[in-house]
Amino acid sequence: MTRFAFTIAASDGAARTGSIAMQRGTIRTPAFMPVGTAATVKAMRPSEVCASGADIILGNTYHLMLRPGAERVARLSGLHTFMGWDGPILTDSGGYQVMSLADLAKVSEEGVSFKSHLDGTRHMLSPERSVEVQRLLGADIVMAFDELVPTTSSVDQQAAAMERSMRWAKRSRAAFDGGKEHAARAALFGIQQGALDEGLRKTSADALIDIGFDGYAVGGLAVGEGQEAMLACLDYAPGQLPEDKPRYLMGVGKPDDIVEAVRRGIDMFDCVLPTRSGRTGQAFTADGPLNLRNARFAEERDPIESGCPCPACSSFERAYVHHLVKSGEILGSMLMTEHNLWFYQRLMGGLRDAIAGQRFAAHAQQFLERYRQAASAG
Amino acid sequence: MTRFAFTIAASDGAARTGSIAMQRGTIRTPAFMPVGTAATVKAMRPSEVCASGADIILGNTYHLMLRPGAERVARLSGLHTFMGWDGPILTDSGGYQVMSLADLAKVSEEGVSFKSHLDGTRHMLSPERSVEVQRLLGADIVMAFDELVPTTSSVDQQAAAMERSMRWAKRSRAAFDGGKEHAARAALFGIQQGALDEGLRKTSADALIDIGFDGYAVGGLAVGEGQEAMLACLDYAPGQLPEDKPRYLMGVGKPDDIVEAVRRGIDMFDCVLPTRSGRTGQAFTADGPLNLRNARFAEERDPIESGCPCPACSSFERAYVHHLVKSGEILGSMLMTEHNLWFYQRLMGGLRDAIAGQRFAAHAQQFLERYRQAASAG
Repeated sequence: MTRFAFTIAASDGAARTGSIAMQRGTIRTPAFMPVGTAATVKAMRPSEVCASGADIILGNTYHLMLRPGAERVARLSGLHTFMGWDGPILTDSGGYQVMSLADLAKVSEEGVSFKSHLDGTRHMLSPERSVEVQRLLGADIVMAFDELVPTTSSVDQQAAAMERSMRWAKRSRAAFDGGKEHAARAALFGIQQGALDEGLRKTSADALIDIGFDGYAVGGLAVGEGQEAMLACLDYAPGQLPEDKPRYLMGVGKPDDIVEAVRRGIDMFDCVLPTRSGRTGQAFTADGPLNLRNARFAEERDPIESGCPCPACSSFERAYVHHLVKSGEILGSMLMTEHNLWFYQRLMGGLRDAIAGQRFAAHAQQFLERYRQAASAG
Repeated sequence: MTRFAFTIAASDGAARTGSIAMQRGTIRTPAFMPVGTAATVKAMRPSEVCASGADIILGNTYHLMLRPGAERVARLSGLHTFMGWDGPILTDSGGYQVMSLADLAKVSEEGVSFKSHLDGTRHMLSPERSVEVQRLLGADIVMAFDELVPTTSSVDQQAAAMERSMRWAKRSRAAFDGGKEHAARAALFGIQQGALDEGLRKTSADALIDIGFDGYAVGGLAVGEGQEAMLACLDYAPGQLPEDKPRYLMGVGKPDDIVEAVRRGIDMFDCVLPTRSGRTGQAFTADGPLNLRNARFAEERDPIESGCPCPACSSFERAYVHHLVKSGEILGSMLMTEHNLWFYQRLMGGLRDAIAGQRFAAHAQQFLERYRQAASAG
C-alpha cells in the first residue's frame, strides 16, 4: 500500500489542489483538519466529524501524553481505536503547547522540561520523546519537534530558536526513521521557522530540505502577528518549500486567512476556531460570523445558515439554537460545532473546485468580498 | 384520529402492559419518558432520543415559561417544531418546580406567585395559567396544576394542600376544556396527592375521578421519603385510581424503583436520573450503577455495558469513556447519556415483554437480585 503520495491535480497561480494518499485514507487538498485535542473533536462523534467532510483530524501530543498518556493509548491499540476515528490522524509535536500551556518550561539543547498544567507532574519533551509519543499514539503524520519563542523576541533569539529547531528536526528525522514499523506506514513533516524574517525562513527551509521530509509546515505564524504580517510572510515562505510536497500552515485560521493562504500555495490547515467558536455561540457563514447569543435571533425561523446542508441547519432554526446557546445547553455546542465544521469543509471544497476549474482568483474575491463586507457590517 | 386511547394488552398481577394511542404517536406502556427540561434532552439530538426507544418525552413548564417563554414558543409553532421532536410530549404543570426552584414563592388560592431563578422577574402560575402555558407549548399530555408542600409538613398541612390541589385540578380541567382546539387533540392528567396517608390519597383519588381525567398521576412521591415509604404508598395508591386509565408515577426513578412500581400497577415514569447521572459519569447497567470516573476503568476494553446494543457501547470502550469523563469532555456526557437512555428503554421493554409473557414476578426478581447485589458489592 501507498505510504504517502502527494498528487497535484491542478494549479491556479500558486494555489493547487490534489490529494495525499495514505494507508488510512486519502486527504483531499487544500485540506482543513479539525482539532481533536484530547482524543475528541469536542462535542462531536467521530461519525459526525467524518460526515462533515473531514478526511483527517489533528491530535495534540502535549495533551495526550499527559492524559490519558501515550503508553496507555498504545496499550489500548492506539489513538484510532481509542477514539473511534478510522481515517488519518496528524499529531503535532507538542512544541507549541509546551511553551504556551505548561508550567515552568525549561529549554535546553536536549529538549524541554516542564510541569503538567493538569497535575504539576514533571515531564520532558525532546525530538526523540515527541516522535516516540506520536508513534505510541499511532499517528499517520508525525510532526518534527521544534522550539517556539515569543514573537516579541529579538531577531537573534528568533535565529537561535530556528537553528535549534533545525537541529531538532534532524533528530526528529532520525528518531522517526528508527521506528521502522511505524516509519513504513506513517509520514514525517518538518516545520519551517524563522518568524517574519525572509532570510531566516530561507535558511530554515533549506535546512529542512537538506534533511528531507514528506511534507513541510510553516510554523510560528498565527501567534499574534496579525493577518497582514502573516500574509506578507506567506508571500515568500511557501515558495521556499518544495513544490512537490504538501505545505501545512499550522494553527490557521479564520476563513479569510485560509483563502489567502491557499492563494499563496498552502495545502493543509488546522485550527480550533470552528470548534471553539461553536461552543461559545459563534457561527461561521458565507456572510461572515454570527453570534447566535444575540437577541435578534430569538425568533428567527431560518437555519443557522440558509442553504447549508449540515444536519444542524437541516433540522433546527436559529431561534432554537439561540435558546440552547443562551441556556448553556450541550446540544447548542453540538449543533454549532457541527455547522462550523461543515462550513469549513464546504469552504475547502469550494476552494478545491475553484482551483480545479481555473477560477480561483474570482472565487476567492467573491468569497472574501461577501465574507468581509458582512463581517464589517455585523 | 384517536385523541387518546389506552389499551391494556396484558396484565400480570397488578402489572400491566399496553399502549396509549395519540395523534403524534403511540406510547408503549410501561413507558419511561426522558426529561427534556429546557426543550432539549440534555446532550442528545432528538433523533438519538428516538433511537433509544423513547416514545414520549417530558418538558418542564416552569423552565420553558421563563426561557424561552411560552408565548415565544407558540409563535415559533410550538415545542415540537422548536426542538425537533415529532412524538408526544408531556409537560408537567410547574407546580413542583415553582416550589423547589423559584425564589420567594407565595401560595394563595389563586395560585403561586414567584420570582424567576434566572433573572428575578416576578411571575404567576395558577391552574389557568399553567394549562395555558402547556397549551401554548403544544403539549400532548397536560398535567393539572397542583400544590406541593414539604414532606416535613404536618398531616393537616398535607390535607389542606391536597384539598387545594383538588380544587385546582377542577380549575385545570375547566381551563383545559376551554381551549377547544387543543383539547380536541391533547389529554389531561390529574395528580393524586395526600403524601403518605392512605386516607388522604383515597380522598384525592375520588375527587380526581369525580372530575374525570384521561390519566392519573401519583404525585408527591420520590421527594426524600425513601424507597421503603414510597413503595408502601404504592401498595395502595395505584389501586385507588381507575384501572382503565394510565397511571403515572412522577419523578421516578432508579431502575429498581421502576420495577417495583410497575409491579404495583404504574404505567408511566419520568426521571432526570439517566440523563443527569450520565453527565456526571454514572452509567446504569444490569449489574448496577458504575462510576466511569473510577480509575479501574482506565484501561478496560469492554464497552460501558457488555451486550448493550446502544451506539455508545457499539463504538467505544470503557477506557475511552473514562478518559472523556475525567477530562470533562462533552462527548463523555453525550455517550454516557445515550447509554443510560438506552438502558432505561431496554429496562422498560424487558418489563413489557415479561408482563406480556406472564412472567413478571420471575423477571423482576431476577433483575432486582442482579442489580442490587452488584450495586451493593460495588
